[in-house]
Amino acid sequence: MRPSKRAADEMRKVTLERGVVRYAEGSCMVTFGETKVLCAATVEEKGPPWLRGTGKGWVTAEYSMLPRATHERTRREVTSGKPSGRTQEIQRLVGRSLRAVVDLTAIGERQIVVDCDVLQADGGTRTASITGAWVALHDALKWMEGRGMLKGANPLKDHVAAISCGIVAGNPVIDLDYVEDSGAQTDANFVITGSGGLVEVQGTAEGAPFSEEELLALLKLAKGGVSKLVAMQKAAVA
Amino acid sequence: MRPSKRAADEMRKVTLERGVVRYAEGSCMVTFGETKVLCAATVEEKGPPWLRGTGKGWVTAEYSMLPRATHERTRREVTSGKPSGRTQEIQRLVGRSLRAVVDLTAIGERQIVVDCDVLQADGGTRTASITGAWVALHDALKWMEGRGMLKGANPLKDHVAAISCGIVAGNPVIDLDYVEDSGAQTDANFVITGSGGLVEVQGTAEGAPFSEEELLALLKLAKGGVSKLVAMQKAAVA
Amino acid sequence: MRPSKRAADEMRKVTLERGVVRYAEGSCMVTFGETKVLCAATVEEKGPPWLRGTGKGWVTAEYSMLPRATHERTRREVTSGKPSGRTQEIQRLVGRSLRAVVDLTAIGERQIVVDCDVLQADGGTRTASITGAWVALHDALKWMEGRGMLKGANPLKDHVAAISCGIVAGNPVIDLDYVEDSGAQTDANFVITGSGGLVEVQGTAEGAPFSEEELLALLKLAKGGVSKLVAMQKAAVA
Amino acid sequence: MRPSKRAADEMRKVTLERGVVRYAEGSCMVTFGETKVLCAATVEEKGPPWLRGTGKGWVTAEYSMLPRATHERTRREVTSGKPSGRTQEIQRLVGRSLRAVVDLTAIGERQIVVDCDVLQADGGTRTASITGAWVALHDALKWMEGRGMLKGANPLKDHVAAISCGIVAGNPVIDLDYVEDSGAQTDANFVITGSGGLVEVQGTAEGAPFSEEELLALLKLAKGGVSKLVAMQKAAVA
Amino acid sequence: MRPSKRAADEMRKVTLERGVVRYAEGSCMVTFGETKVLCAATVEEKGPPWLRGTGKGWVTAEYSMLPRATHERTRREVTSGKPSGRTQEIQRLVGRSLRAVVDLTAIGERQIVVDCDVLQADGGTRTASITGAWVALHDALKWMEGRGMLKGANPLKDHVAAISCGIVAGNPVIDLDYVEDSGAQTDANFVITGSGGLVEVQGTAEGAPFSEEELLALLKLAKGGVSKLVAMQKAAVA
Amino acid sequence: MRPSKRAADEMRKVTLERGVVRYAEGSCMVTFGETKVLCAATVEEKGPPWLRGTGKGWVTAEYSMLPRATHERTRREVTSGKPSGRTQEIQRLVGRSLRAVVDLTAIGERQIVVDCDVLQADGGTRTASITGAWVALHDALKWMEGRGMLKGANPLKDHVAAISCGIVAGNPVIDLDYVEDSGAQTDANFVITGSGGLVEVQGTAEGAPFSEEELLALLKLAKGGVSKLVAMQKAAVA
Repeated sequence: MRPSKRAADEMRKVTLERGVVRYAEGSCMVTFGETKVLCAATVEEKGPPWLRGTGKGWVTAEYSMLPRATHERTRREVTSGKPSGRTQEIQRLVGRSLRAVVDLTAIGERQIVVDCDVLQADGGTRTASITGAWVALHDALKWMEGRGMLKGANPLKDHVAAISCGIVAGNPVIDLDYVEDSGAQTDANFVITGSGGLVEVQGTAEGAPFSEEELLALLKLAKGGVSKLVAMQKAAVA
Repeated sequence: MRPSKRAADEMRKVTLERGVVRYAEGSCMVTFGETKVLCAATVEEKGPPWLRGTGKGWVTAEYSMLPRATHERTRREVTSGKPSGRTQEIQRLVGRSLRAVVDLTAIGERQIVVDCDVLQADGGTRTASITGAWVALHDALKWMEGRGMLKGANPLKDHVAAISCGIVAGNPVIDLDYVEDSGAQTDANFVITGSGGLVEVQGTAEGAPFSEEELLALLKLAKGGVSKLVAMQKAAVA
Repeated sequence: MRPSKRAADEMRKVTLERGVVRYAEGSCMVTFGETKVLCAATVEEKGPPWLRGTGKGWVTAEYSMLPRATHERTRREVTSGKPSGRTQEIQRLVGRSLRAVVDLTAIGERQIVVDCDVLQADGGTRTASITGAWVALHDALKWMEGRGMLKGANPLKDHVAAISCGIVAGNPVIDLDYVEDSGAQTDANFVITGSGGLVEVQGTAEGAPFSEEELLALLKLAKGGVSKLVAMQKAAVA
Repeated sequence: MRPSKRAADEMRKVTLERGVVRYAEGSCMVTFGETKVLCAATVEEKGPPWLRGTGKGWVTAEYSMLPRATHERTRREVTSGKPSGRTQEIQRLVGRSLRAVVDLTAIGERQIVVDCDVLQADGGTRTASITGAWVALHDALKWMEGRGMLKGANPLKDHVAAISCGIVAGNPVIDLDYVEDSGAQTDANFVITGSGGLVEVQGTAEGAPFSEEELLALLKLAKGGVSKLVAMQKAAVA
Repeated sequence: MRPSKRAADEMRKVTLERGVVRYAEGSCMVTFGETKVLCAATVEEKGPPWLRGTGKGWVTAEYSMLPRATHERTRREVTSGKPSGRTQEIQRLVGRSLRAVVDLTAIGERQIVVDCDVLQADGGTRTASITGAWVALHDALKWMEGRGMLKGANPLKDHVAAISCGIVAGNPVIDLDYVEDSGAQTDANFVITGSGGLVEVQGTAEGAPFSEEELLALLKLAKGGVSKLVAMQKAAVA
Repeated sequence: MRPSKRAADEMRKVTLERGVVRYAEGSCMVTFGETKVLCAATVEEKGPPWLRGTGKGWVTAEYSMLPRATHERTRREVTSGKPSGRTQEIQRLVGRSLRAVVDLTAIGERQIVVDCDVLQADGGTRTASITGAWVALHDALKWMEGRGMLKGANPLKDHVAAISCGIVAGNPVIDLDYVEDSGAQTDANFVITGSGGLVEVQGTAEGAPFSEEELLALLKLAKGGVSKLVAMQKAAVA
């Protein structure tokens, strides 16, 4: 029995609320149970220097946690002068995940930055960020479309969402909260498109190594979860 | 006529919502019109080194804005490796304001940190922060009281709240939003206790200098505004 | 009785010595009693990027203390990699104060930087800095005039000087030295023009809040003090 | 046909040379074709603060590239003042991989740091680092054993090695060099123990998403590769 | 003929003024012509960690230039977050030079820091710093002696002073000012004790290499110069 | 008798191996006994900004030590965010030494960076770096010549090499290893050209001051050593 009484393949309650930040070109408050992330997409006229002259744009992400998103207060990263390794790992992952479903040529030499700020953290902040960031990005692209800033067809080629899975007390389970995450033997994150393609697979043994069979069990759970998340994204932007 | 159609002595709609962050010892979402700040108070067992052995505690504050709280996206301060001068000025002001109404001996050699994170910024973020931080601090002190961590009587000696005033188009007005703030000739912030004592008075001529009469007109507006804010704090913690 | 035996409205001995740094376009050594600040103005051909194309220039200030300006040695700020919050607060104040009396269009797209380096600190370093910086700035503008670098009339519209006041042992007094400053209940700084206009008013309760009457008493002292400082500036540049 | 004429399941020539750094407690120069990494293990008497009093030790890794390990010179990270996100991601991966096969209780409250410095980079530096780091760690543990510093049995529970695989021109291939890596559609890294357990699985779609079948094909290649690497490790430390 | 009309072995006018900083344990304003350095010695009860338990103390130095000490304004080093290579080179040199004449055992486990802040720079700032720092150090040691803080005899074993020499327009000359320094073919600094022992010899070819004969000619000039500087130090502390 | 049984004028075994880094335009592994430095020269099309429009290029160097080059592990400099004073001193010295023998006009407005990375440190790393860097630079210039990138004649005007000398146990000796260096009374480094000209002379008394006679004895040893090093450079590039 999971601490939260959920079934092995049962995700926490997920909500996606659009338009929560007045000034952003697209935004979404995403919750996975008690985990709560504010995603805000900004369209910048100036892309990164290495794309100058290529006609292509860029999508990137930044990630941060409010100090008291966590059970114990976390020191602000500005205090140590640089983002932690964990922060950088996550924001690179979110950016790559979004770029996997965007036609970078269609947005021109611009940059879209999606800020994912965690207001409350109860496990799964990176997967919630990806899932919510897609909605914010969707709305920013709609905003661009409304201003005639897009070249050709819709640059958003597919949905993308993410879910964590893990082996807890010997059993594969989906959408770990903080308590489960702390005690998991294996921890995995899957980023999957609306059409079921794999964008990222990251599995880590926290204790004993895991087997191929376990990896496949986790992947199966993730596919089921992501298909539900994609349905929610569709409902949210309908 | 003000851009927002408000009367000269009319504040924006203010709300104070307690308990918005699950893990903090005290928290408050404060809004002044479109300005929205999340205040979260943390009780830390370890006070700052310079108070060791004095039997006294400390109350401090940190302030930050989410990148897309603003009309244009603002670069995260961690990117430049240090908080800006403006950020430091504000967090010092919030900390001083709170300490003015707390008996630091009663909390023992502990530190209370109040994080003020701006989710949306439409002028007056520092005054909203002080006003909301008092509520978060109040709840953190109640939390301590419930655990028998306080020495003697209630350490919260009074209310404290803050409001901005300014001279816009030649007229003294209260609670400037971003549009008014950008064009103000004089910009002032007042931090005032529940019993009407002045904690901080900061007036700055952005263009032409201001007169003693103008300073007094702004102070009068501020006193009226703060007495309403204090009434709302009372209602919020009732 | 004040520790220095001064009357409540009696400032310390003030001196303003021009031309103390050989290479600067304008310079002034200012002393307020034992407080000693070296102000040096530099005319830079290149203004800040955000003024490009506007035809306007900029006046800014930097502030620092020599490590042994103070009773106890203070660590150099370069050691911690960034200016402290206090340093940034002061240099922003000095810059704003000077800009209040300069016609920025007249100096063209240039920048004047006034460096205020404290050689000895006995309280009141920020007010001495502003008072001396005006003299350094005056001389730098004369230097520009001599080279035909100014557009139209004299860009220096007025004098500006500053003085600290405070409530010490219950009494409003002017120009606090370090000993008084350490024990003041209320600490205030006033930046006032030659024609008596207020540029900055900053009052802070260090202990109990202060009243409107006390604020007015401090302001009255400050006005008297600044009129004397302006007279000395006039004598210095005569 | 691969650019290097290798078969799909053919790794580059791998060498493991022990004892290459005179002063380290264990060291290994590892090459995967033109990729060349110097791994050096240091035994430190003082473990990280969070393990104090637990009786457990720690194994960690640091990673860096010499500026001219690469085709184009890379700026030293000290110049920008902090390790890049990529560097931090890799050194966290190497540390986790090694800890997966070490009994941290057996080494006592000490820390072993394995430095992985890339002298020449032609793809696969992180997998070469892990593979070579195991040898350096092995020798450092032998060094400790020789000094009676270990508690109980051999703390090295298993081998661990790593290999990259990817989908290049539609085909799953093993051990990508720089040219293949630049053009891969999917890029994956596998960290696997001597007994075949999975420690880390990281698959990333660089272009189109990948399928479950492709993931399994890559995993199969990796298992074959790692079993050869483990055999080489055995030979090296024999 | 030198630009300053001085003879080849003629130093600029040198002055040493003691007690110029009110709060320091020892201080000296030193001028070499237009070069002007404020040296202030601080006695700290706490020595560096690596000397704990050895019974020995430490003497160190810090060096900085005011931004407008130079012909063109120099950016403050705090702006770039770290002292430049040149600054570090100089402060290490000053520290080593002073330690060469101090009995570190006699001062106990304390640290003396000598701050050398350049108010005006016309060449030779490092040699002026060493020469003036000796006087500040002398007075700080006297201050310690007066408080019974010294163990045994006078810890100041000898004088130490420094002078720059160089080959300018083919001729060896002493005490280069900025103009000569900029055009020198060879630039050298000599740190020499009162009894004529060499503490540091640094010669650098800026253009063509120099010969042994030239090195000896410069050394001869330096010995003559330092003996005059030592005489001035004696007069200053008499 | 020296600890290494060498005669006073006997250097350690020196080797110079070219072409050790596949991608660099020139490279050399240099060993002085157990000291081992990898020198790699990079030709960059873009010179430093201050040479723009002058038609001249630049040669510079960077220096670093691998963490476990030393007996005790040394923390990476990136961890503290900046190169140490020692590192900066050395890389400035290497750069100056190389520039002394290069015609900067002949290389055009380009920059050559020579990276000196110490793989193993047993004293004399800076002198080994200079000696090996010359070889790497030589090969990079040949590479440029082969591509017709040079203006006019060979820009390498002479050889340059360096050696440390010191007074150990009262005797002048050449090429100190770590053990001797730690106990030397005087430590000196000499950078000398192939034709015997002095480029840098740096002598430092670590304990008692040294005399002119001792300086000359060290210089004599150095001249002998450098002439052997230059012969080895000639053999290496033949």
